[in-house]
Amino acid sequence: MTVAQAVEEALPEYRLVYFGDLARAPYGSKSPETITAYARENTEFLLARGARLIIIACNTAASVAADLLKADYDVPIFEVITPTIQKACGATPSGRIGVIGTRATIRSGVYEEKIRQLLSGARVHSQACPLLAPLVEEGWVNKRETKMIVRRYLHPLKLKQVDTLVLGCTHYPLLKHLIQPQVGKRVKVIDSSAAVAAELRLFLESSPEFAQSLERDGENVYYVSDVTDAALSMAQRIFGRRIDLRKVAL
Amino acid sequence: MTVAQAVEEALPEYRLVYFGDLARAPYGSKSPETITAYARENTEFLLARGARLIIIACNTAASVAADLLKADYDVPIFEVITPTIQKACGATPSGRIGVIGTRATIRSGVYEEKIRQLLSGARVHSQACPLLAPLVEEGWVNKRETKMIVRRYLHPLKLKQVDTLVLGCTHYPLLKHLIQPQVGKRVKVIDSSAAVAAELRLFLESSPEFAQSLERDGENVYYVSDVTDAALSMAQRIFGRRIDLRKVAL
Repeated sequence: MTVAQAVEEALPEYRLVYFGDLARAPYGSKSPETITAYARENTEFLLARGARLIIIACNTAASVAADLLKADYDVPIFEVITPTIQKACGATPSGRIGVIGTRATIRSGVYEEKIRQLLSGARVHSQACPLLAPLVEEGWVNKRETKMIVRRYLHPLKLKQVDTLVLGCTHYPLLKHLIQPQVGKRVKVIDSSAAVAAELRLFLESSPEFAQSLERDGENVYYVSDVTDAALSMAQRIFGRRIDLRKVAL
Repeated sequence: MTVAQAVEEALPEYRLVYFGDLARAPYGSKSPETITAYARENTEFLLARGARLIIIACNTAASVAADLLKADYDVPIFEVITPTIQKACGATPSGRIGVIGTRATIRSGVYEEKIRQLLSGARVHSQACPLLAPLVEEGWVNKRETKMIVRRYLHPLKLKQVDTLVLGCTHYPLLKHLIQPQVGKRVKVIDSSAAVAAELRLFLESSPEFAQSLERDGENVYYVSDVTDAALSMAQRIFGRRIDLRKVAL
């Protein structure tokens, strides 16, 4: 939702079809096989709803399944990792970059691999933070326990003196007010949603024919595989307005 | 798994077919519709594997879907809630009973309703503890933050001076060492797994013909919808031996 909101804001002229797999979320602790199978189903759902460009707006799905999806489907596929890495590599003076994410994202090693491709001398320090997404989903973004857990997770990265920290999970921007003071104000904290929206704008500007062919009329629609009060209030908080979440069965 | 282990221990002569829906877990924050749909699929999977008696070994699924499953399927269906309530009602001197569980379990109101049916003067105080299952799944059963979160959740029940506390989620027995000191040693902490195993033994003893007709040969089998290292080590910890988790797609 944080990515959808950023894309909507950056590119209001295009029609957005959102799908959130809330019934089967969270993905962060599942196996690569299961994450890949779900990512395929989600992609096919969006294509069947007329999507002509896909954004994988989840770092876990992107880290495990993006290459497979790009190989299997004919439409342009964007994801949250590549533009975030570009931003981080541009921002780091020392080349010491920290990455935090779910267990599946960190285990995939995608961030380390892609950062080293772009910045050969980089030293990447990764830390899985599996409890942060559940804490955000509970709305515990200002609780003392959350602050302590953030501190516990970030401590090893602090010791490594990273100067740039990538928020490798779309939940973490909602904890930025706890993360930034923990790592210190000199550390650049990079989040994905603005980076992917900027990359997308650039792509559409440089592909005017493709951009022209995209649908511009009609309302944005927000599909989910489950509707709960928590999801509705999360949507309200992120988008700043009431969102009509439409339940579909996959 | 805590229930399967207790049933296996209490009734070693019968053949157990376990299914854990790890790919779509946790259920605790999903809507009743989604939980019911998944519970049906899980039941049909077990029936197709030859199960002739079903145990719903998850309080969330039991609280939302047990009545529907009992109406729809012909086999005996047991669940973790009824025997736990019987035990709690037998244990409480004052009738002040606390219940902790997932958001979906507590919202269903099943515990309050069934406890009042059995013990009309009972006062039931319920508390959703949505972060405890993720903390257990992370293995954070001895962390300071977990202790603080347990204290935060249990504080309202302590104020109500409950004398009996029902662990209304199959994850919570793994936190009993934090829960018991928090509520005080005089409070009886009741967990489901032993209660359901005892109820099952009683049923089979009183239905000898049905019991005789059940399969006794063959190994116990453990199916899951996803296999991860975390699941394997959780199984090892709960069963006290290596468990061969077989992955199936639902």
